[in-house]
Amino acid sequence: MIKSRLFTPGPTDVPPEVLNEMAKPIFHHRTARFREMFAAVNVGLKKILRTENDCITIAGSGTAGMEAAIACLVPRDKKTLVANGGKFGERWVKVARVYGLDVDEVELEWGTALQPETVKQKLATGEYGAVITVYNETCTATACDLQAIGAIVAETGAILLADCITAAGALPLETDAWGVDVVAAGSQKALMLPPGLATLAVSEKAWALGANITSPCFYLDLKAYRKSVASDDTPYTPAVSLIRGLQVAVDTINDIGIETVWARTAILAEATRAAAAAIGLGIYSRQPGDSVTALSLPEDIDDSIRAKLRDKYGVSVAGGQAQLKNKIIRISHMGYVDPLETIGMIAALEYTLSDMGVDIEIGKGVTAAVAVLKDWE
Amino acid sequence: MIKSRLFTPGPTDVPPEVLNEMAKPIFHHRTARFREMFAAVNVGLKKILRTENDCITIAGSGTAGMEAAIACLVPRDKKTLVANGGKFGERWVKVARVYGLDVDEVELEWGTALQPETVKQKLATGEYGAVITVYNETCTATACDLQAIGAIVAETGAILLADCITAAGALPLETDAWGVDVVAAGSQKALMLPPGLATLAVSEKAWALGANITSPCFYLDLKAYRKSVASDDTPYTPAVSLIRGLQVAVDTINDIGIETVWARTAILAEATRAAAAAIGLGIYSRQPGDSVTALSLPEDIDDSIRAKLRDKYGVSVAGGQAQLKNKIIRISHMGYVDPLETIGMIAALEYTLSDMGVDIEIGKGVTAAVAVLKDWE
Repeated sequence: MIKSRLFTPGPTDVPPEVLNEMAKPIFHHRTARFREMFAAVNVGLKKILRTENDCITIAGSGTAGMEAAIACLVPRDKKTLVANGGKFGERWVKVARVYGLDVDEVELEWGTALQPETVKQKLATGEYGAVITVYNETCTATACDLQAIGAIVAETGAILLADCITAAGALPLETDAWGVDVVAAGSQKALMLPPGLATLAVSEKAWALGANITSPCFYLDLKAYRKSVASDDTPYTPAVSLIRGLQVAVDTINDIGIETVWARTAILAEATRAAAAAIGLGIYSRQPGDSVTALSLPEDIDDSIRAKLRDKYGVSVAGGQAQLKNKIIRISHMGYVDPLETIGMIAALEYTLSDMGVDIEIGKGVTAAVAVLKDWE
Repeated sequence: MIKSRLFTPGPTDVPPEVLNEMAKPIFHHRTARFREMFAAVNVGLKKILRTENDCITIAGSGTAGMEAAIACLVPRDKKTLVANGGKFGERWVKVARVYGLDVDEVELEWGTALQPETVKQKLATGEYGAVITVYNETCTATACDLQAIGAIVAETGAILLADCITAAGALPLETDAWGVDVVAAGSQKALMLPPGLATLAVSEKAWALGANITSPCFYLDLKAYRKSVASDDTPYTPAVSLIRGLQVAVDTINDIGIETVWARTAILAEATRAAAAAIGLGIYSRQPGDSVTALSLPEDIDDSIRAKLRDKYGVSVAGGQAQLKNKIIRISHMGYVDPLETIGMIAALEYTLSDMGVDIEIGKGVTAAVAVLKDWE
């Protein structure tokens, strides 16, 4: 009878309204009914992503979305700058190499982000056709200054591809105003759905560069998706029930207003950081994003803390990846999570650390979080 | 995107596993499949109610259950003692009068419970055939000493009918050992179901008295239910989907163990009382039960606090009834509610009182609750 609460940075909890919508009987996708639904979803996605660009939704994970963009839009005759500050940056390096791109990998110390100045210097050479970066590197819970990077790339002929999988719908993101040519989002994060959908927003500048590229793939051929979406359709069978849920989720977010959602994500992160400071836990990242918080574990505490949090308190958090295993836990503030359960999660963290022998004053973290969240609207 | 949390003393939140079970396709009730399910449910109910007595489940509210017992089992040739310490006690007085019983109404000051000594004195006259009491008067969040009352009634020829609607599955209840002849429970309380089912556990002593009574009603004729349940059936169409959900709920409770469930309910109540003391709120009842807590509101705060709690924080609590309107709020600790969200509820209460101008130190109540719940197993 322990209630389950996903504080993992994907999947996140799905609102019951969305689950109910997805449980409704399936209908055929080659119908006016589907096209009407899909058209409405795409209008809603554009509002969330702050763009007039085409929104392409693919039945696949966020990785499929990023791969489609890398495969179909990145110029072959120039270098591609790829920022690698964690497991996701590392993945985009691999994908770019699969497609034979001339990759300039910027290796970042974990917990730091791609600096705008680096991008400026590299692009000044005129040798680059694209910049690929993660907005929020989930692995280290570190966000880059995507706005500043966008402003630099926009002044060149290169395009900016941003993995916004744990950012879209959580961190401020002005796709058009910031000049982000490709935004990639995944359904199981701030969009409050189960996994299974990737959404891309693609600029005219990116489509123009992609026009010269013969697609090296079929299912992920973005041009086919673009052609279909013009008539509110998909080239291959769409994941109808997920899109049905997406409509409810997108409408929910837009009813609240995306700026309010961003602000709420930020205050949940702020409360978590305040609680961590109060009980003596460090923040791992040097440039922490607000969608996910990575807390450094005390010396004697290992990853077994996660099973204790989950089994006794129903609180699921993520552990560290690779060299960060046993060093950090990662807590999501995205989507369907609210202040009251964030307070509860912090209580569970206090209890568990105390049970594991850490000398903390139970209630200090919670008190700090409660003080921050008092101003929540 | 505010999560809804029912802290009302019925309905209470329903676990998703129960909701999912009830959403499954309906099947016919005059089948072996139904009888097998119903037999299993009745075995589970007996474990929860700690009884070998017949368990009768009626499609109706808790009131229907109490009425069936009063109409069909209470001797007509003797007096009936009915305790009235709130809206529910008052209701059983009315029901008893509808059926022409010779009612001796014991009017209790609200916030106090029927005293065993009173029962002892009354029954010593030999004039009484039945005692009707509420175990936990939800209206005032006040519990009587049902064990002591049971011991007194058991030594007489009278029967004890207990409204255990906000007690069964929440407060310690040993139906057989305490000599409670009729226990009435409702589905939408600690049994974690939507409203729609009443369950009665009826002793042989009560059946024996009822044998001499010609049933004054049809749908609520308990003898018909008893006859049917002997073959795991019901006399009239049962609420199949609710019983289906009941099976999941009953199995969940028995997997945990009813004593653990009682202990958890108690510690949630204790944490809430500790938080109230820390922020200067009084407990209304002089004999508070652990299934529901009634907090006295400060002078300047009225019932509008409930809409604020609900609209801003998703926390639904009950207000006061009749003369207690604007004086108290009532918070449930029954069923599918856990420590972490109880902590969150207290934070919401602190925020709301502070927003309404009450001078409280935000975090004091939460800290007190967190300290109590540290010992939760």
